[in-house]
Amino acid sequence: MIDPTLIEQQNDTRRAALQSDYDALAAQLDRRGIDIEALTARAEDFGVAVPSWGTGTGGTRFARFPGEGEPRDIFDKLDDCGVIHHLTGATPKVSLHIPWDKADPALLREKAAQLGLGFDAMNSNTFQDQPDQHLSYKFGSLSHADAATRAQAVEHNLECIEIGQKIGSRALTVWIGDGSNFPGQTSLSKQFDRYLASMQDIYAGLPEDWRIFSEHKMYEPAFYSTVVQDWGTSLMIAQELGPKAQCLVDLGHHAPNTNIEMIVARLIRAGKLGGFHFNDSKYGDDDLDAGTIEPYRLFLVFNELVELENTSGLDLAHMIDQSHNVTDPIESLMISAMEIERAFIQASLVDRGALADYQAANDALMASATLRQAFRTDVEPILAMARLRKNAAVDPVATYRASGYRVKVAETRPKVSGGSGGIV
Amino acid sequence: MIDPTLIEQQNDTRRAALQSDYDALAAQLDRRGIDIEALTARAEDFGVAVPSWGTGTGGTRFARFPGEGEPRDIFDKLDDCGVIHHLTGATPKVSLHIPWDKADPALLREKAAQLGLGFDAMNSNTFQDQPDQHLSYKFGSLSHADAATRAQAVEHNLECIEIGQKIGSRALTVWIGDGSNFPGQTSLSKQFDRYLASMQDIYAGLPEDWRIFSEHKMYEPAFYSTVVQDWGTSLMIAQELGPKAQCLVDLGHHAPNTNIEMIVARLIRAGKLGGFHFNDSKYGDDDLDAGTIEPYRLFLVFNELVELENTSGLDLAHMIDQSHNVTDPIESLMISAMEIERAFIQASLVDRGALADYQAANDALMASATLRQAFRTDVEPILAMARLRKNAAVDPVATYRASGYRVKVAETRPKVSGGSGGIV
Amino acid sequence: MIDPTLIEQQNDTRRAALQSDYDALAAQLDRRGIDIEALTARAEDFGVAVPSWGTGTGGTRFARFPGEGEPRDIFDKLDDCGVIHHLTGATPKVSLHIPWDKADPALLREKAAQLGLGFDAMNSNTFQDQPDQHLSYKFGSLSHADAATRAQAVEHNLECIEIGQKIGSRALTVWIGDGSNFPGQTSLSKQFDRYLASMQDIYAGLPEDWRIFSEHKMYEPAFYSTVVQDWGTSLMIAQELGPKAQCLVDLGHHAPNTNIEMIVARLIRAGKLGGFHFNDSKYGDDDLDAGTIEPYRLFLVFNELVELENTSGLDLAHMIDQSHNVTDPIESLMISAMEIERAFIQASLVDRGALADYQAANDALMASATLRQAFRTDVEPILAMARLRKNAAVDPVATYRASGYRVKVAETRPKVSGGSGGIV
Amino acid sequence: MIDPTLIEQQNDTRRAALQSDYDALAAQLDRRGIDIEALTARAEDFGVAVPSWGTGTGGTRFARFPGEGEPRDIFDKLDDCGVIHHLTGATPKVSLHIPWDKADPALLREKAAQLGLGFDAMNSNTFQDQPDQHLSYKFGSLSHADAATRAQAVEHNLECIEIGQKIGSRALTVWIGDGSNFPGQTSLSKQFDRYLASMQDIYAGLPEDWRIFSEHKMYEPAFYSTVVQDWGTSLMIAQELGPKAQCLVDLGHHAPNTNIEMIVARLIRAGKLGGFHFNDSKYGDDDLDAGTIEPYRLFLVFNELVELENTSGLDLAHMIDQSHNVTDPIESLMISAMEIERAFIQASLVDRGALADYQAANDALMASATLRQAFRTDVEPILAMARLRKNAAVDPVATYRASGYRVKVAETRPKVSGGSGGIV
Repeated sequence: MIDPTLIEQQNDTRRAALQSDYDALAAQLDRRGIDIEALTARAEDFGVAVPSWGTGTGGTRFARFPGEGEPRDIFDKLDDCGVIHHLTGATPKVSLHIPWDKADPALLREKAAQLGLGFDAMNSNTFQDQPDQHLSYKFGSLSHADAATRAQAVEHNLECIEIGQKIGSRALTVWIGDGSNFPGQTSLSKQFDRYLASMQDIYAGLPEDWRIFSEHKMYEPAFYSTVVQDWGTSLMIAQELGPKAQCLVDLGHHAPNTNIEMIVARLIRAGKLGGFHFNDSKYGDDDLDAGTIEPYRLFLVFNELVELENTSGLDLAHMIDQSHNVTDPIESLMISAMEIERAFIQASLVDRGALADYQAANDALMASATLRQAFRTDVEPILAMARLRKNAAVDPVATYRASGYRVKVAETRPKVSGGSGGIV
Repeated sequence: MIDPTLIEQQNDTRRAALQSDYDALAAQLDRRGIDIEALTARAEDFGVAVPSWGTGTGGTRFARFPGEGEPRDIFDKLDDCGVIHHLTGATPKVSLHIPWDKADPALLREKAAQLGLGFDAMNSNTFQDQPDQHLSYKFGSLSHADAATRAQAVEHNLECIEIGQKIGSRALTVWIGDGSNFPGQTSLSKQFDRYLASMQDIYAGLPEDWRIFSEHKMYEPAFYSTVVQDWGTSLMIAQELGPKAQCLVDLGHHAPNTNIEMIVARLIRAGKLGGFHFNDSKYGDDDLDAGTIEPYRLFLVFNELVELENTSGLDLAHMIDQSHNVTDPIESLMISAMEIERAFIQASLVDRGALADYQAANDALMASATLRQAFRTDVEPILAMARLRKNAAVDPVATYRASGYRVKVAETRPKVSGGSGGIV
Repeated sequence: MIDPTLIEQQNDTRRAALQSDYDALAAQLDRRGIDIEALTARAEDFGVAVPSWGTGTGGTRFARFPGEGEPRDIFDKLDDCGVIHHLTGATPKVSLHIPWDKADPALLREKAAQLGLGFDAMNSNTFQDQPDQHLSYKFGSLSHADAATRAQAVEHNLECIEIGQKIGSRALTVWIGDGSNFPGQTSLSKQFDRYLASMQDIYAGLPEDWRIFSEHKMYEPAFYSTVVQDWGTSLMIAQELGPKAQCLVDLGHHAPNTNIEMIVARLIRAGKLGGFHFNDSKYGDDDLDAGTIEPYRLFLVFNELVELENTSGLDLAHMIDQSHNVTDPIESLMISAMEIERAFIQASLVDRGALADYQAANDALMASATLRQAFRTDVEPILAMARLRKNAAVDPVATYRASGYRVKVAETRPKVSGGSGGIV
Repeated sequence: MIDPTLIEQQNDTRRAALQSDYDALAAQLDRRGIDIEALTARAEDFGVAVPSWGTGTGGTRFARFPGEGEPRDIFDKLDDCGVIHHLTGATPKVSLHIPWDKADPALLREKAAQLGLGFDAMNSNTFQDQPDQHLSYKFGSLSHADAATRAQAVEHNLECIEIGQKIGSRALTVWIGDGSNFPGQTSLSKQFDRYLASMQDIYAGLPEDWRIFSEHKMYEPAFYSTVVQDWGTSLMIAQELGPKAQCLVDLGHHAPNTNIEMIVARLIRAGKLGGFHFNDSKYGDDDLDAGTIEPYRLFLVFNELVELENTSGLDLAHMIDQSHNVTDPIESLMISAMEIERAFIQASLVDRGALADYQAANDALMASATLRQAFRTDVEPILAMARLRKNAAVDPVATYRASGYRVKVAETRPKVSGGSGGIV
């Protein structure tokens, strides 16, 4: 853990400048009829879950280049997640991936409690073969042509629920790589039927207060067809399964040029939006840090969420899902959490009364200018003040670097050699 | 109309070669366990509707370059559609667009009967303003912020149904350009609610034996958001409206890289596939001739249709929707109808038993080879023989050119000067 | 023209708030080691050319919905351009399109001088047929298979240069729609050879101090191939023609997902970047207002321009090229000019020393954070102060609306009926 | 090796049907004025190189699922390549990847000679770290910010040339993963300068009769920018380096919707097309089997190659580069080689005289129909007859399966456990 005294010392060096920027922003917002304190309160309340797997250096099919002090197991990962939350105050929960994070549930709860963390949605893994696995997922899992393989995959998901129940999770995210690489390899329709039947078996094992999230993805690892390829299919799944089934939107899982905020609005209307996997991308499922490639897109997603935040029954799981290939994963996760929070606060200061009037009058120019005014407002003082008030760091990255955390854990965590990716 | 004697003469010059190719193909297919006559019968039965508006030269927002003998009105267009059907034997129906094709229904029926044509789905137009129109569609139609404009658009659709009833149509296709050009211009959610309410009003006016088709499109003419932007939204609409509502798939209305055959399979499973607007494209809604850019994609769509052709309740409206900017529209429509029929016949000769076995065995290589074998089989002799047996032309384009039809109609149809497109 | 008194009155109501925001920003920038006055000076010096054709309401192939007070001719357009420049202080030049803007050069110079405007690059038009035109461009212009048609297109470009010389322009932008809609329609290689030969003829007629810009575009109006389809081809053209030939980058003319800032960097290295057509897009050549869809992308383009601004020989023509379909074109052009200027100033406050250090140390996280810090800085006070100091409007749109300009010109400019686009 | 007797036995069972199909096709082609024997001779002469790394099962960043009998080293890989060539007669050369395929050059030559194989272009690898490697390529190789790392990468490429010289290769393909994952991570311009300087060092070490191929790729493993991102940059590189430098086109390395055949035509005109990495793709660099996703696109590439085959100096290296994740790699490589050959033969039977006439007359419809007629001609009998005459297999996959080769090598090649890809 990061020494609270260090955080305080670091914050002290930034306190005066922050107050000055905060006051100036408060004055400007006041002129625009906006109460900065209400926004700061929203920032303080905001949280997004961190993926346990995001704390290790990721890679591509070509290579993986690990960094210093890679976490050895879920307990190291939780330590790293604790650092992220202590410095940002914005990541109170961790999302686990089974079997990667399999461990004694009691120990998991204990460790998380020590770090002030809770657990978000569980993630199953039927896109890889495990050393001791009976049947291979090379040709699919929940939608496999073979009934025994499907049963094995269902069983694994039920186990994820079981573990999740023991650690206080209340949702299961199901993402599979099933699909095909060639036209004709599978029957598109029969494969989907098999997928639905398997999901119904999992759904049957879902506790009363749990939800199951269906996550779509256009392609990869399957390169011709993917069983849950887009939100339309994901919606059909959630409708077929029942009220506890909802759709998860990963920002990087869409076709080029897709208007993601429309999907958000549609799924909310259908009562089927369950949550997000936040990240950013330029080409495919690049899994880059949220808000670093196209920040306005992230803002527009939150613009929908804020506009519709009072929708009855809306209960969103905000989670990060990224691959940190060239940065310190702890730093990337802190930056990402803050960029997501930034988009939320920017969307929160949209003048919705004026916007509605411009929309009603078909004043396209002023309506869009209204969104841009909110987006270009530099809300960093609000985010930093929220952190300060929660005893987190005004500047999390600088404080983290000052702490020497990475060097310290590298002393006990052994050096990892780079993998060659999946290519050979 | 094309002189039947000319068709016969033309066919005579090709009869021997055709018979020779047909016999060779029959022998080859026989070795593969396929009865060529069953395929020829399927080809004879196949039909796809021609769009009335496709008989005129199309254009882009930059320019339109009309050809000789452009049709002056719907009666000229029907003459052209008659030629297409007489030469290909594959386009028994015409789809009308209102108000472009507005005319005395009795005369329309009479004219069509003379030409041996029927009428397929009606198309409404609320993406343009007409000279005498009360309220403008500049900012939308069925989803407009203003109730009176929405009512006007609903009224127009009801009129289309009314006309359609008088001429024997049994479906209404609704495609609108509504959307927005800028983030914030409209509320994505409220605009959709308004659209649904308008569609419910139209649905309420639908005769018992009619269907209404919702047609999605990713973009254009709206360039930031489009109300019915993808098949997911189209599905939500069809579900919300009721059993008479189905989805229409236009092959050019998708995001880059989209796997369209999966959408076909999904919509069939949902009981919501109503039909197609066939065409081909490389970039956007290019509206090019079907099968000319990516013929294997067209084949894969038909592969789904043939695999699922015995699905209960499946009743598809096959229609062409293209823009012929640099060709004689009659020739393009003939070529397109034949390419669509080609894909259908190629898909019909897939060895489905072998395919299912390969799929069950995860033999990806042989499964995909099975599709490719069907695709690369040159079924032209089957298509030509089907035409010959229906007294259509073995070579429709050559016969059309020999007929001098275009030159003849150009004598009575006045020259049209080129438009400048929408750009200025 | 807008009454200077009105501008002053309007500015007076905003002066105090602006000064307050400016001072707060100055203090913050000062803490970051940045002199706000240097930035404001850069803002005052910045200019981007307005396209004459952008002052009229644009449209799509589906429809055009004109607004009130559409300009009747180039003199009305210049009036509108004058308003834009007077209110923003950022658009000192106008780019003409021939033959749309053909008029007595002396009168053009006189009118522009009255309005305080100059002329930027000339634009030729061989993508449409004009009423009195001898040979059609339906199948191409500079690359047409027919030598006489190519000669006609060359002649037109030479005339554009001639007009340009008389009004003080010093560059010709050549964008053509030539290409094909079907594989095989043209020989890709021969068509390019013909294009190059035509361009060499035009180049031969270029005055000593002129430049010729080659503008590429992926597709539209040609939908299978376009002769100048990407920057690689544009570079080949500029290399083949000679030192006076350079490449023009239109932000909306690229393939999906293209990294445009890399193209900017590459063309600068090749000594071949001539300038820009600014706009924004989500799907294709949407021609939306600059900075309204993906503002960070615009910033990243300017990040390259500022990083490389001292490159020897770099002399860029900054121009807007947009289609204003749902807004008042004057407002859209003002907003666009200001968004472009915003990106320039944001890019100007990047801490380039720190950035270079982070890059040298492979500190990807802090390097990218350095760019984001500049981007999220709200530089509106700098832009507004620059306008104030140039006697332009602190809030151009509000001042424009207060002026009642559009209503006034609508009294003398007759109402225009909507076109149907190119579709029929 | 496959027993020649088995091949003969297998061919005997197919000989009669093949002769029948061949004769029928000969008759049809004869009517079209085409001599089948000339085509069969072209097919016999055709060859495409096989990538050594393609003989092992590939994977994605999510997982790798090895098959039975995975090759242990380059000698096993050469055995597999030998099988592919013996059965298809179309893959006389192998392309090596260093250090994966590092071995005693004398042994490599001896082994290849035994198998009747030669060596095509060498491939260097600076996108992975090797166990004994001094400096890491995590942040780049030839364009790394650090001079020593660049020198190491240059040295590796020079070693590849050295090895290549000893085994009779005459070209080096350079593909690097260098780029960045975030805006700002690198200076786009300086990184390119460093890359060029490194390539000049390699170029300086190139033997007189060698060529160096620059291979571009839009993205992956870098997800924001890639140093050699498109053919425009690749062309700049080849121009800068000199006459021995040319561009390599991998069919899967382009932006969505890119017209690849235009790039082929442009690079040939620039005298800079060096060769291909053949494969197919639907989304990104999917590395699927050539001709299985969009066969018409492959045909259109060969249409350019055949049209321009007499271009002075044109000397193309045809190579396959694929990842075989769900098939037996030997089968996929055989299928791919045959699909490439198919496209070549289809392109060879285009009626180029008629095509040129249609193009000259702007007869877009018949010009494109001319290409389609060639494409839909089932040339399988020509390909099979060419194989038969070269003592290869009429049906390579069936014969391979009948041989039991995979089962046999699995007895000596140990089972490999699946990798987890690069993701964790």
